[in-house]
Amino acid sequence: MHHPQTASRDSVAQAAFDIISRLRGRSPRVHCITNTVAQNFTANSLLAVGCIPSMTLSREEIGPFVAGAQSLLVNLGTFDSERRLAIGVAVETAARLKLPWVLDPVFVDRAPPRAIFARELIGRRPPVIRLNHPEFSRLAGDAPSRDAVMKFARANRLIVALSGATDLITDGERVASVANGHPLMAKVTAMGCAGSALVAACLAVEPDILDATVAALVVIGVAGEMAAGKSDGPGSFAAAVIDALFNLDRTTLVARAKVS
Amino acid sequence: MHHPQTASRDSVAQAAFDIISRLRGRSPRVHCITNTVAQNFTANSLLAVGCIPSMTLSREEIGPFVAGAQSLLVNLGTFDSERRLAIGVAVETAARLKLPWVLDPVFVDRAPPRAIFARELIGRRPPVIRLNHPEFSRLAGDAPSRDAVMKFARANRLIVALSGATDLITDGERVASVANGHPLMAKVTAMGCAGSALVAACLAVEPDILDATVAALVVIGVAGEMAAGKSDGPGSFAAAVIDALFNLDRTTLVARAKVS
Amino acid sequence: MHHPQTASRDSVAQAAFDIISRLRGRSPRVHCITNTVAQNFTANSLLAVGCIPSMTLSREEIGPFVAGAQSLLVNLGTFDSERRLAIGVAVETAARLKLPWVLDPVFVDRAPPRAIFARELIGRRPPVIRLNHPEFSRLAGDAPSRDAVMKFARANRLIVALSGATDLITDGERVASVANGHPLMAKVTAMGCAGSALVAACLAVEPDILDATVAALVVIGVAGEMAAGKSDGPGSFAAAVIDALFNLDRTTLVARAKVS
Repeated sequence: MHHPQTASRDSVAQAAFDIISRLRGRSPRVHCITNTVAQNFTANSLLAVGCIPSMTLSREEIGPFVAGAQSLLVNLGTFDSERRLAIGVAVETAARLKLPWVLDPVFVDRAPPRAIFARELIGRRPPVIRLNHPEFSRLAGDAPSRDAVMKFARANRLIVALSGATDLITDGERVASVANGHPLMAKVTAMGCAGSALVAACLAVEPDILDATVAALVVIGVAGEMAAGKSDGPGSFAAAVIDALFNLDRTTLVARAKVS
Repeated sequence: MHHPQTASRDSVAQAAFDIISRLRGRSPRVHCITNTVAQNFTANSLLAVGCIPSMTLSREEIGPFVAGAQSLLVNLGTFDSERRLAIGVAVETAARLKLPWVLDPVFVDRAPPRAIFARELIGRRPPVIRLNHPEFSRLAGDAPSRDAVMKFARANRLIVALSGATDLITDGERVASVANGHPLMAKVTAMGCAGSALVAACLAVEPDILDATVAALVVIGVAGEMAAGKSDGPGSFAAAVIDALFNLDRTTLVARAKVS
Repeated sequence: MHHPQTASRDSVAQAAFDIISRLRGRSPRVHCITNTVAQNFTANSLLAVGCIPSMTLSREEIGPFVAGAQSLLVNLGTFDSERRLAIGVAVETAARLKLPWVLDPVFVDRAPPRAIFARELIGRRPPVIRLNHPEFSRLAGDAPSRDAVMKFARANRLIVALSGATDLITDGERVASVANGHPLMAKVTAMGCAGSALVAACLAVEPDILDATVAALVVIGVAGEMAAGKSDGPGSFAAAVIDALFNLDRTTLVARAKVS
């Protein structure tokens, strides 16, 4: 016998697995503008859940690449000039074709030009922005309290996915949280970038943006927990996360999901 | 007692291992112009078979780098402007010094500028082009039937290595096939790029271009099969492929090779 | 009962572990300008010892990134134009703020423009230059004998860390050597780059530049030895090195260190 919260937890987890099953069945193409540090791990994470990643960033061809994709990730991690030009074309293409996209404003707290550029991109209405506490504080000008995050989501008419020990996901009205994950995830570069790429992937097959975002975050969190039990440190852990994304089944996801 | 086909299979496999032994003994340098997603896995694949990879793409220095190498890989995976300029210098240097090179026209089916650029490069006579079915269709304007592939090879005076469940390798007259490999290979990014890099490596030590190409493809296919038995998913599989390339011995290669 | 050399060996190893403990406790940020082949492995190596890596190379923002870091790595591995501009800004920022930095003149023996650029950078007084034998010969115009290396260190007023079967570390007066490591380390791309990044990391928490350099090299050498016992080839070895950096304890380091 379930009490209401467990039932809710179960139905969110079931919905998350349904989304992953759709990824495996439909193999959407996800175009990723991401930093060179993260590209390989991100591509392998997307392949592990059934997607086809593409990652070009030439101004001349990124338009057709995005136009043929089912969703887009814009990660600011390597902020070179060619990448910034590519982002402009990519976001315009996504807007024109109504393709969902995710903004990951990596390290905006570290350099002013990056924060300015991120604010311009927020003005172009990404359906989802995924970021951590210092990045939120820099962009919102406010500490990431639940109220501040909800206000930021409403003001910018987007879903905020704030990562942390517990992830907070909100459109400004509804609020969800995901408490899965493992400390080793912070010891592997690109783990957050791969999480954002999975959000983009889920948006390709699920029209409810909040549900898609929650699904991606619970899946990568549970994969991290599964991987931790099979690894000797962050090196073997990184490979084990990819294995876990590939092998994840409904029973495991439902048993481990900590969502509300 | 062998019947004729087995004998042929054995002799092709023996010749392939001879080529790998030469790589291990001579450690040729293979210069790779490849996409940033694939660079790390490609470099480690080359190191695993005894080669020394180099990967710079600065216009000012790629000439000397290619001039000091024994073969060249040109992969179109990241199509930025600096890389295109580098490719021009690299191919010119290879032609001048009669160095063998391999063209991997990744994703030409996805964006017109890339297909145009690939056609120009084909005009510069790469000894080998390695590509998959949609890429072939885009460049040849025809479905990849055996006849169409042979015709394309003859018309462009090069070896075509068409990857698939069974790889087809032809110069337009002779035809070879390699049926090794494992489905997990499609779940790891850069596996195809690494295969093309191994073709370039084998060209550095074997003057018969078709034999060199077959050797590379049977070796990576068998490494994939060996790795599949030692991995829990695509993350551990990627590392296991590198291990298998490093550990591959003659007995295993001859026992597993599916070539004709 | 220790004889003097063992006591010295022990105290160097103890000091090296103290430095690693400080990394784990303080989590300094290390900014790395490094080649795209090496970025992922380098970032994960730094994370494994407790550091926070950053790797942007946009001219507009690299100043603030370096200014907020505790040390800097300058690796010439990918020699594109944007990277060269970024290096200028980064080194200037480090000099102004008296941040320690490490120069890794990868492959200067392969192309003249790179050697010229490396000489300019040596003129800007990196506290440490880490390089291999052919790179030393190209820059010093002399074979890497002990005397030649000491002379080069004195003439350029820096610490030379010359890698090889035994690493030689000298400021031109004091000389230390590290004989740890494993042959598989030469079979994984970016292992040397990661070693240089660890030198930069140790400089962030240890003012004695020679001690910091020795600490980094003994730590990665011992990690390589630990990893070799747990791997089946260079693929699994790469992950095992990261695991070993993360798990390294004082007893193991002191037991295995081959320093003088």
